[in-house]
Amino acid sequence: MALNFSHFPLSLTSKISQLPSSRSHSFLPCTIAGSSSVAASSATNMSSGRPRVKDFPYASPPIKDLMVDLVSTIENRLESMLLPCTLPQDVQYFQNQSDTAHASLLLRSGVPSSPIDFILSSWLHCKLPTGGALNITSLSSYMNDSSDAPHLAIEIIQSSPTNLVLILDLPPRKDLILNPDYLNIFYEDTQLENQRQLLDNLPEFQAYVSTSLFIRSVFSPTAVLHRLDTSSSGEARLEQILRDEVMSAAKQVVRIWLERCVFGEKQDVSEFEKDLLKKRDRIYRSKSIETHIGSALPEMFGQEIADRVLEVLLAASL
Amino acid sequence: MALNFSHFPLSLTSKISQLPSSRSHSFLPCTIAGSSSVAASSATNMSSGRPRVKDFPYASPPIKDLMVDLVSTIENRLESMLLPCTLPQDVQYFQNQSDTAHASLLLRSGVPSSPIDFILSSWLHCKLPTGGALNITSLSSYMNDSSDAPHLAIEIIQSSPTNLVLILDLPPRKDLILNPDYLNIFYEDTQLENQRQLLDNLPEFQAYVSTSLFIRSVFSPTAVLHRLDTSSSGEARLEQILRDEVMSAAKQVVRIWLERCVFGEKQDVSEFEKDLLKKRDRIYRSKSIETHIGSALPEMFGQEIADRVLEVLLAASL
Repeated sequence: MALNFSHFPLSLTSKISQLPSSRSHSFLPCTIAGSSSVAASSATNMSSGRPRVKDFPYASPPIKDLMVDLVSTIENRLESMLLPCTLPQDVQYFQNQSDTAHASLLLRSGVPSSPIDFILSSWLHCKLPTGGALNITSLSSYMNDSSDAPHLAIEIIQSSPTNLVLILDLPPRKDLILNPDYLNIFYEDTQLENQRQLLDNLPEFQAYVSTSLFIRSVFSPTAVLHRLDTSSSGEARLEQILRDEVMSAAKQVVRIWLERCVFGEKQDVSEFEKDLLKKRDRIYRSKSIETHIGSALPEMFGQEIADRVLEVLLAASL
Repeated sequence: MALNFSHFPLSLTSKISQLPSSRSHSFLPCTIAGSSSVAASSATNMSSGRPRVKDFPYASPPIKDLMVDLVSTIENRLESMLLPCTLPQDVQYFQNQSDTAHASLLLRSGVPSSPIDFILSSWLHCKLPTGGALNITSLSSYMNDSSDAPHLAIEIIQSSPTNLVLILDLPPRKDLILNPDYLNIFYEDTQLENQRQLLDNLPEFQAYVSTSLFIRSVFSPTAVLHRLDTSSSGEARLEQILRDEVMSAAKQVVRIWLERCVFGEKQDVSEFEKDLLKKRDRIYRSKSIETHIGSALPEMFGQEIADRVLEVLLAASL
């Protein structure tokens, strides 16, 4: 099972660093996915204080609608390929002692005959000293080594009603210079660039650069790595962009991933290539965990909860 | 000998595409380096109509000063490692029949005992239908397979006195996910990010994205890939930024490349790794030539000149 967290800590670190009176942290965003503080009232829908991942209880309405759409699309298409989540209950949902940080995590492994290693959906909600909240919502899917097809990575990090970071990509699993056919098959021929340009052409989107050089290296050349800022045009404009352009681009990326990477013609993967894929995924996982998890979760959730989640993640990444 | 042109066509294509009444072309910018139309008068310094590369005859004063400084720094440090240029005279300098396009190219190979494959300096000057000119100035260095150290790529593409594209990077020669030590040694430990941030923090700089997905894939995570636009603050501001921040960043990048990649401690390169490096460089070269040269030079210089230059480049890239 391959866990790849590298796109999460990157954006989260940057997000926090731009908040007033905050320090630049790095913690474990990949296991948690969130929602916007502007819709915290929807959290009242949760039952018994243990909201499910797929409820996205703190998400703003357009983000919740987007994530519910994407998760249900993927789960419906892959249903026969996916096993139930077996994470412990206290890793599927956890919160800190002061009730200011909540997180939920859903991991469904693929059946052995599928090309899916696992699907990871998650959210994080964290109250900020400023009175606002940080919310991270994510949906990722990872292929196993029966295929060299790209993973899927979607993440939205929102700290105010007019500002968020959007990550939307099919991260490659091979060096694109050594493998130009791979670039053609999964990126040129699929016209993924159209989705990037759809968003990049909007004046409210700006390029987003991670503070981590490793994280910068993991994305494809068609990745949407953008900050969406509507502070001059208002909250309604941000929600409109989420409902229109972001919804459209994300649905297209998921469609391409399903059709080309999951159900598309499989490339033969030799034993040598499998070994390389395994090595690459192993480095990817261990490097991400080493870089980000050690100092992250303890700050938000305390050492005990952090250790518990970390233990599960390390076991999953073996 | 490894020729890598991929960063040139990328930026050049984008540059042209933003000019009025122009189509998006792709041609061979890497063999040619230019100068700003605002200083075309300095071209009168050339003798007998065959200006040398190192004269940068069309360059604006700050770009000329920058390139002369960088070229002389590298040639002085590497002098004992470099052979004289052996390119045919009509490839060292060429122009089109209507005298609207001029280019010059200098290629100095490294001696066999050096880690240098070759140094390539170049410029292109091309009059535009709008009355302005497109000028490209470049300086690139390529390592041979006795070392896995990154190459050097510097390019400035200017089409107006207040707008240019700057590329400044040490392109990696290995997959940075599979080789995190390589990322640490050449990018983290050298603090190359400081130079990128020096420029990125200026409001006049914006991220630059190539139209070519292959080209986007070749740069490091600390690459300066920016468009510098001073149309609101004027030509003097652009020249000031070139003389101050760009000069400082470029000199630091060249210093790091010399100290770490050329004269730094060499990593052992196994025969297996050498084979991979050779394969990667070969794909890189052939892909760049295939993508960009076929349709590029003929449009600017006519088929005969294009064939002559292409033949030399293909021979050099074997």
